[in-house]
Amino acid sequence: MPSYRLLVAYDGTDFHGWQRQPGLRSVQGELEQALAVLARAPVAVQGAGRTDAGVHALAQCASFQLTAPPERPLSPERIRAALRGLLPADVSPLALHEVPADFNARFSATARFYQYRLGLAPCAPLRRLRWELHYPLDFAAMETAIAHFAGAEDFRAFSTRVGALRGTRCRLRHLALDRRELAAGELRLRVGADRFLHNMVRILVGTLVEIGRGRWAPERIEAILASGDRRLAGPTAPPQGLFLERVEYPARFLTPVERAAAAGPQEATGD
Amino acid sequence: MPSYRLLVAYDGTDFHGWQRQPGLRSVQGELEQALAVLARAPVAVQGAGRTDAGVHALAQCASFQLTAPPERPLSPERIRAALRGLLPADVSPLALHEVPADFNARFSATARFYQYRLGLAPCAPLRRLRWELHYPLDFAAMETAIAHFAGAEDFRAFSTRVGALRGTRCRLRHLALDRRELAAGELRLRVGADRFLHNMVRILVGTLVEIGRGRWAPERIEAILASGDRRLAGPTAPPQGLFLERVEYPARFLTPVERAAAAGPQEATGD
Repeated sequence: MPSYRLLVAYDGTDFHGWQRQPGLRSVQGELEQALAVLARAPVAVQGAGRTDAGVHALAQCASFQLTAPPERPLSPERIRAALRGLLPADVSPLALHEVPADFNARFSATARFYQYRLGLAPCAPLRRLRWELHYPLDFAAMETAIAHFAGAEDFRAFSTRVGALRGTRCRLRHLALDRRELAAGELRLRVGADRFLHNMVRILVGTLVEIGRGRWAPERIEAILASGDRRLAGPTAPPQGLFLERVEYPARFLTPVERAAAAGPQEATGD
Repeated sequence: MPSYRLLVAYDGTDFHGWQRQPGLRSVQGELEQALAVLARAPVAVQGAGRTDAGVHALAQCASFQLTAPPERPLSPERIRAALRGLLPADVSPLALHEVPADFNARFSATARFYQYRLGLAPCAPLRRLRWELHYPLDFAAMETAIAHFAGAEDFRAFSTRVGALRGTRCRLRHLALDRRELAAGELRLRVGADRFLHNMVRILVGTLVEIGRGRWAPERIEAILASGDRRLAGPTAPPQGLFLERVEYPARFLTPVERAAAAGPQEATGD
């Protein structure tokens, strides 16, 4: 049974998140429904990041296995075309590739990268795609706060729900302000890690905004991290500013083109 | 009776355009309704550009006169705060200033500037804010076509509805591709003129896309302009890619800060 890796973008506004839930509209549910039409049988889809209600994706990664009905063999081209036709307007299939059978979008991932968009000037057309703030931010204070995350390993204080199973250790790969959209009234925070705890990016953002607006000193980050206490961190930033940007996998799961891109110079991140 | 100039951004998705129409939701209607609550009397609002259904604005300009109820005098600060509270989420009041009594957002304007956003890669979160194309564009051909607009005066062929009253002459101030968002899969067309005919920007875009995808040669622009025949131009591009970006007024209607900004170096436009 061939395995596939699918990249999708979606607008999280009208979804109850990635994860299938009975009676609620989810991205996983929409994908499984479209693929079931193609396969004429149920298909289980696994996602790299289980984004919450209202959170968007620029390139979420999903995996699934698909057996074509014997009378109608399926090429990746046919699956791609069918998904374009079957998926709703708020889910865009971006790319589909056949992958080794042991690929799993969630468990094979080595890192996830998110961006969070803060609106510094009101802009109604973008209200579903950022968190509009009505106060100025001190970027230097936020960057000082970010520096205090160096060497952090345990993010328990930056999580709402802690599962006993996998612990609260994360390895940050990247954490920086991206000022490239400032002229358009937007500040972005970019963050990458091997894994994220539940609501971790949104609590990071909520905390950095408290510091940026002057309510807390940047040094508070050390105390929050050391405490492991969610109540010391800032509020959970609203979902509509959050975008899953990219998921990283070992080279053997990538196409030659993707391998070359991953080995080349890293994308600029504005820091 | 004091006169005011209001800058507003809006998401055109859920409006039947700028202009008040009985029984339909319009931006002008929402503004007039909010101001009537404040004034406790009907208020007529004039807009610089009467955007069509689905067209957005980053900084539309509106003017109105407002008499405060005698028992409750109104400062610009109070009007601003009240508008923030009274307007729906898809209309953002950006700035409000008192202006000379002869100011009229529509008739005082000396130029309007629009941008049109083309999506070159599918991106569901942005589907309400651009026209998604499913074919590559030849930017060089589009720029050659743009060069053929030099000296053009009569835009009759680029208009759906031609009013006898004001003719079809327009003075282009700017027309260029803006490639700055290409890394994000977006090509923008920026255009400014003293006035625009009905659907003019969208027909310009539809025509340039026909040329960009290789259906027509760039030189066809000369023939279209000379003919004055709408049927020779391209299709009307869909509304959701169009943004009214900025309206220009004589210096005497501006605040000192705005005057300084207008006199300073012009904003970069990527060309």
